[in-house]
Amino acid sequence: MYKLVEVKSGVCAAEGFFADGVSAGLKSGNAKDMAFVYSQEMCEIASVFTTNKMAAAPIRHFKAKGNFQTNFVLINSKNANAMTGKAGISDIDEILATLPTCVSNPVMSSTGVIGVRIPKEKIIQSAKLFDLSQCEPHAAATAIMTTDSFSKEKAFRVELADGSSFHIGAMAKGAGMINPAMATMLCFITTDAKVSKSEMQAILERATLTTFNAASVDGDTSTNDTVMLLSNAQSDTYNAEAFEAALHEIMRFLAREMVRDGEGATKLVTYNVTGAKDDAEAEIVAKALSNSLLVKTALYGEDPNWGRIASTVGASGAEAYEEKLTISFEDVCVYKKGELFFDATMEAKAASVMKKGSFTISCDLGIADGVFEAYGCDLGYKYVEINADYRT
Amino acid sequence: MYKLVEVKSGVCAAEGFFADGVSAGLKSGNAKDMAFVYSQEMCEIASVFTTNKMAAAPIRHFKAKGNFQTNFVLINSKNANAMTGKAGISDIDEILATLPTCVSNPVMSSTGVIGVRIPKEKIIQSAKLFDLSQCEPHAAATAIMTTDSFSKEKAFRVELADGSSFHIGAMAKGAGMINPAMATMLCFITTDAKVSKSEMQAILERATLTTFNAASVDGDTSTNDTVMLLSNAQSDTYNAEAFEAALHEIMRFLAREMVRDGEGATKLVTYNVTGAKDDAEAEIVAKALSNSLLVKTALYGEDPNWGRIASTVGASGAEAYEEKLTISFEDVCVYKKGELFFDATMEAKAASVMKKGSFTISCDLGIADGVFEAYGCDLGYKYVEINADYRT
Repeated sequence: MYKLVEVKSGVCAAEGFFADGVSAGLKSGNAKDMAFVYSQEMCEIASVFTTNKMAAAPIRHFKAKGNFQTNFVLINSKNANAMTGKAGISDIDEILATLPTCVSNPVMSSTGVIGVRIPKEKIIQSAKLFDLSQCEPHAAATAIMTTDSFSKEKAFRVELADGSSFHIGAMAKGAGMINPAMATMLCFITTDAKVSKSEMQAILERATLTTFNAASVDGDTSTNDTVMLLSNAQSDTYNAEAFEAALHEIMRFLAREMVRDGEGATKLVTYNVTGAKDDAEAEIVAKALSNSLLVKTALYGEDPNWGRIASTVGASGAEAYEEKLTISFEDVCVYKKGELFFDATMEAKAASVMKKGSFTISCDLGIADGVFEAYGCDLGYKYVEINADYRT
Repeated sequence: MYKLVEVKSGVCAAEGFFADGVSAGLKSGNAKDMAFVYSQEMCEIASVFTTNKMAAAPIRHFKAKGNFQTNFVLINSKNANAMTGKAGISDIDEILATLPTCVSNPVMSSTGVIGVRIPKEKIIQSAKLFDLSQCEPHAAATAIMTTDSFSKEKAFRVELADGSSFHIGAMAKGAGMINPAMATMLCFITTDAKVSKSEMQAILERATLTTFNAASVDGDTSTNDTVMLLSNAQSDTYNAEAFEAALHEIMRFLAREMVRDGEGATKLVTYNVTGAKDDAEAEIVAKALSNSLLVKTALYGEDPNWGRIASTVGASGAEAYEEKLTISFEDVCVYKKGELFFDATMEAKAASVMKKGSFTISCDLGIADGVFEAYGCDLGYKYVEINADYRT
């Protein structure tokens, strides 16, 4: 038995963690664009990175270090330090070398424009402004935002049956370039649970599959996707089941928040696929739906165009049959196993479901027991506006 | 030796073929929405259909007939007759049973909205208006359009060294839902070449791979995609090399026309991928580029954001290395094997390439000899406008 109690302190919820955000002049108008996460005690690290072959310099820098502990993560927005070759790596070394001596084995994480050298001097100067005694999780969460329209944070105190407790807290950024195979997203999670590195890594990977990897904004996968989980074991307590439940809940929340904040998105849609040949095929279908431009534009138009959903199911590659498929918008069934009963009344009902900011589209393939849930959004004019002119 | 001479008569270019379009009241304002292609002589048929598991009734109807010859194809727009189950099939039988007695083994092809029974009576009444002696290829090509903004036709007289000649002519429709695995497209090709069914089928399949299957507007694959090639052998002559060259040229032209007419598209972009591990990997990369929303919106914004191209190459799954990749906009190289030299001057040059209505983006992966060329377009406000409200 355990209880998850939501707390407000984001990435500083866990004992002994500090965080803040400052402005390094990378964003315009003195907006915060650099953040740190710091622990006095050294931390074990679990991590999941992009599968993009053009992985950015910070990711290659991290991986080159092999197995290590750290107590400091430096994060900047506005520049991804991607496609910057060896220079990108040595820029990171130079920056990290200037940090205070209490910092040990620091790592860096970046997000922003690809293919431009990182403004090293600005970052070095601004890192001197960090006050490592600050607990300003919201400032940190704000600093790592790029095209995000709101910051994303979530934290729990996990109360165990024996009266002991530990914390997990997180911040994330991500709005566009979010894809089922990770996302243009950064997520930093801290915990004071006394969890081993290997267990933490296994749980993090499992949770990623059904949270960040189930979220899609535009089907693109970035060079910088990073999920990092730091544990300083300060609570001296742990329970695997409670830890996994809390971590999954936090990551699911953040994944859905990223989709809700999808560039120009007005709707958060949950695709609930059931009855597939197996879970893998359900996943293929759910992700095909969340990535389909025709489905996404129909959502934007609040048009219950179930034919596009059926067509996308059929095009996904998964086993599917017209006479076994059932499609519903929330509890409004619009197509059932070959029966055509979609009339004006039903269309009005389905359209009213679609006016909601968040709803579920269910597809039962009627074949076997495979299930998967994916999260997607609509695509409207605003997405085009944001992305046609991102760099300038 | 052979010579391809372009002729204007589209799907009627080949000897003994007739075609026309009429209005059945499916589209508003008496616009043409039904077409036929007819030959007095029976024809061998080669065909390629969608891989969508929800293949529409006309495709299932065609396939159920097995091996057969025909002299008549009936085509309607505005209703796809897809997701209509057994009723959709029997509707086709009823419609085809009403055709004149000179018609033998007729087939039907449909495009339009999914999930609505076909307006059988309207179609039967209007088919009575067909005058099978008409050669109005442009009327036919116009009648099969849906969201197309212009009709697509192409025909050649193929002149052989011995003085004999044959013809190949075609019409196609397609603008949205165009995808590398076929497209929401119909294409009808007629020829008077004396070609065997099996050879015609093999050549058609080969040509599809590098033409219609290399074209992408929005990455969705439809329920109705059909390419049909009819030969009535009236010319009594044939040359395999010339036939394949002419067919490929026609299909490549039509594929590019469909992309150029992509819903809301303002640019036709050729993605020329070279240096991949093999042709299959080059194809993966080229199609990933033509389908990437971030690339497509950057094209629309005329923003030479090569970082998004690099990221998409990296995310495609194909083998790729930052230090081996080279990216060019026409002859303006913007990134070369790890070198960052993209400055304001270069950006201005690349941006001026992007102002053109049609241009090439080249990616050399620098690994081996794999090549593929794909065709894509940009994505702008107009795409959203067209697709958010298609049915109403």
